[in-house]
Amino acid sequence: MAQKKVMRMNGSQPAAELSKVFEHIDTNKNKFVDRLVEYLRHPSISAHNIGIGEVAQLLVQALSRLGFEAQTFPTQGHPMVLGRWEHAAGKPTVLLYGHYDVQPPDPLEAWVTPPFEPSIRGGRIYARGAGDNKGQHFAQMLAIESHLAVHGCLPCNVLFLLEGEEENGSPNIASFVRTHRTLLKSDLVVTADGPLHESGQPIITYGVRGLAGFELRARAATRDLHSGLFGGVVPNPIWTLTHLLATMKNAAGEITIEGFNDDVVAPTARERAAAARLPLYVENVKRELGLKSLDAPIDRPLADRLMFHPTLTINGFHGGYGGPGQKTVLPHEAVVKCDARLVEKQNPEDILDKIEAHVRKHAPEVEFVRAEATLPSKTPLDSRFSEVVQRAVRLGQGVEPLIYPVLGGTLPEYVFTKILGTDSFVVPYANADEANHAPNENITIDCFVNGIRTGAALLDALGNLEAAGLSVGSLEDRPA
Amino acid sequence: MAQKKVMRMNGSQPAAELSKVFEHIDTNKNKFVDRLVEYLRHPSISAHNIGIGEVAQLLVQALSRLGFEAQTFPTQGHPMVLGRWEHAAGKPTVLLYGHYDVQPPDPLEAWVTPPFEPSIRGGRIYARGAGDNKGQHFAQMLAIESHLAVHGCLPCNVLFLLEGEEENGSPNIASFVRTHRTLLKSDLVVTADGPLHESGQPIITYGVRGLAGFELRARAATRDLHSGLFGGVVPNPIWTLTHLLATMKNAAGEITIEGFNDDVVAPTARERAAAARLPLYVENVKRELGLKSLDAPIDRPLADRLMFHPTLTINGFHGGYGGPGQKTVLPHEAVVKCDARLVEKQNPEDILDKIEAHVRKHAPEVEFVRAEATLPSKTPLDSRFSEVVQRAVRLGQGVEPLIYPVLGGTLPEYVFTKILGTDSFVVPYANADEANHAPNENITIDCFVNGIRTGAALLDALGNLEAAGLSVGSLEDRPA
Repeated sequence: MAQKKVMRMNGSQPAAELSKVFEHIDTNKNKFVDRLVEYLRHPSISAHNIGIGEVAQLLVQALSRLGFEAQTFPTQGHPMVLGRWEHAAGKPTVLLYGHYDVQPPDPLEAWVTPPFEPSIRGGRIYARGAGDNKGQHFAQMLAIESHLAVHGCLPCNVLFLLEGEEENGSPNIASFVRTHRTLLKSDLVVTADGPLHESGQPIITYGVRGLAGFELRARAATRDLHSGLFGGVVPNPIWTLTHLLATMKNAAGEITIEGFNDDVVAPTARERAAAARLPLYVENVKRELGLKSLDAPIDRPLADRLMFHPTLTINGFHGGYGGPGQKTVLPHEAVVKCDARLVEKQNPEDILDKIEAHVRKHAPEVEFVRAEATLPSKTPLDSRFSEVVQRAVRLGQGVEPLIYPVLGGTLPEYVFTKILGTDSFVVPYANADEANHAPNENITIDCFVNGIRTGAALLDALGNLEAAGLSVGSLEDRPA
Repeated sequence: MAQKKVMRMNGSQPAAELSKVFEHIDTNKNKFVDRLVEYLRHPSISAHNIGIGEVAQLLVQALSRLGFEAQTFPTQGHPMVLGRWEHAAGKPTVLLYGHYDVQPPDPLEAWVTPPFEPSIRGGRIYARGAGDNKGQHFAQMLAIESHLAVHGCLPCNVLFLLEGEEENGSPNIASFVRTHRTLLKSDLVVTADGPLHESGQPIITYGVRGLAGFELRARAATRDLHSGLFGGVVPNPIWTLTHLLATMKNAAGEITIEGFNDDVVAPTARERAAAARLPLYVENVKRELGLKSLDAPIDRPLADRLMFHPTLTINGFHGGYGGPGQKTVLPHEAVVKCDARLVEKQNPEDILDKIEAHVRKHAPEVEFVRAEATLPSKTPLDSRFSEVVQRAVRLGQGVEPLIYPVLGGTLPEYVFTKILGTDSFVVPYANADEANHAPNENITIDCFVNGIRTGAALLDALGNLEAAGLSVGSLEDRPA
């Protein structure tokens, strides 16, 4: 038995238990697609509060049918759905996270077929939510269902958490996780969201950058003035913001806000090595985006820019006249919106404090307004579940996954890594051209089925940790 | 006779000839108001090409009735109207400039009475063009008419030039003046346009600042990008423009473009003294506009800011997201619009060359686009017609005029001072609250009548230069 497991964990072929589950998935593939189509017919647009309660109840029922203890939890916004299957005594507990809300489907006229009347064309399922995120968490549910159908039980314990307002920026997940910390106690978190690499290679993401958003608002006179009659007399808020911004980041690309970089932790050797293996090609980026050169500083490697350095981006600058021709106006107000992407161990509130202090010092007349603040998150590459997750992807999709130490963007992973203290992995199932947040969102049937297989492989691997040489002695006992 | 004239020119009371003209004006005051009302009924909106030809013909007829040789001159845009009365042999020739086009009247719903149905309320004539500029050049015509009615002839030679596209930025006046230089030869130019000082005191303006307008356009990627996935990788055109602008003017208010200030001529002692006599109060400006302080540099006197220094104003800066909340976008393009107000002897084309060279040096990827270029203009305070114009205002309005060596704004005065080589004076007749370019434009009947009187006094004084101790020997003979 031990022999068999070792063989299995070291190879790229599934062992017998998982093979049976894969067979089940293969046999039921068309039915699974039909059931996803049925699920996608239910709108659940968080921004417009359409269908949220109905879909939350559908999910509670679906999880209950699988033998999960399932319920909704009210929040200040839309309810969380939580299902618990904890009958694998002594086995690890995985928290599977996803979100059941979708983006608004506008512009409707750009859809080839209506967003909530799913259509299958050319091996793809087109519908709002197909990729983001219904198709992906539904794949996780079908992975569970397949295990139960074949074996009558799951190889490990599973918590299934589905949020109803991720597309609204997850405003309540942190307080929910904080409040229900005990209920959500788990050994690892796995999120199936986002797309595969554009090459089709699967991805496992270990970290994300944090976010500190803010606005700078400058006003001078009580109204717009004539630049001839008041130029040189009345302060110009656009010049004020220009000079302020120039003190925050220099032309060499260095962020010059005092203390901004204090808490930046350099990447580990392992992270550097992983980054170096990623297919990141400067020439490709330049060609695809029509760039003559990358941003300053020019000598920074592409992977470092994306993963290991904070940024300060001006998202928008608006003041004064912007129409055709010339209007010789001296504007009386201007607004700049910025975001800083943060790396470990920067704290967005601390960073916003530092930026505010900088503004107070250099341009005290400028109003500083805080916006979004999300902590960065990082799961160590040598997490004890690292190899398990990688193997699951390898088995599920038949391809070696790309290991991203950090994703440049921001997800609320910190609620798992920092509030729960649990390692967290993002394992996307959707195709790179899923058109999430856009018209004609879709998931390929291949990606959907590979997602089910990956989910099944993950549960199997977590049930057989010893085979991978992983100790479970340190896993705390979970109530059965 | 000489005795009488000296008395008259030295005092503030008109001599007999002018007194009779003033009496005529007083007697006919109501009729003059009625005739202005009639004139204002004719729309002449240059921006919409409405009524231009009709009003040009009305003016040719009116000038012809006064005994002027009058005609229209076609331009690339709207016609110029030129009338000539040159029967005062040996006397100076004044070119009276005005414009017969008006601003569009929008928003119509903001007018108490319709813009082209003049209405008299509370001693004011309300109509589009009442102040800007029909009421003012019509006052000049009535001054001429009154002289002719009383004396049968004019005391000096008069050229009357009325433009039909001043509200479009006078795009053809320079080439018209250049082409018809000989026809327009005159000893001085007087323009009745703009408002009196807000205190009601009359103003004589000797100079105006020039204008050099330009746009800076920056583009990086071919589309807007996600700030998390591309921040730190792809150049941000807003940062590019921010850093470029910061090299053009520093936070201390100094314009740092190489050579920008090279041709700035310091004001004369006389100009400084005149500026010092103006009622310019920093505290009033700050209170009226809600300012805590004036623009940098903070130690510069108010008059110097308005008259003797060039400016570099950002009229508008637009790029990226400007809506509510936060959008974590990395914008792919941004545009800045600027104007520089120029003083003698800066040349706008030379300044634009220098700014372009600066852009090429500091941010070669930024597109530089030239906009309006207008030369500054200055008539010396010791112009030999200075005292004549001042006395005319004093006699016409009964108040000492304020002497502005330079007006902060820009008018195409250079076509007279630099193309014709003629001293040019701007003598506004309208009330400070004329609401030009705005709904409910108006001129007070008092201002209108004082304008007629000022015009009459000017013609009288120009016919009696010897009385003011001015040599006419240097005046070239004009054809009778």
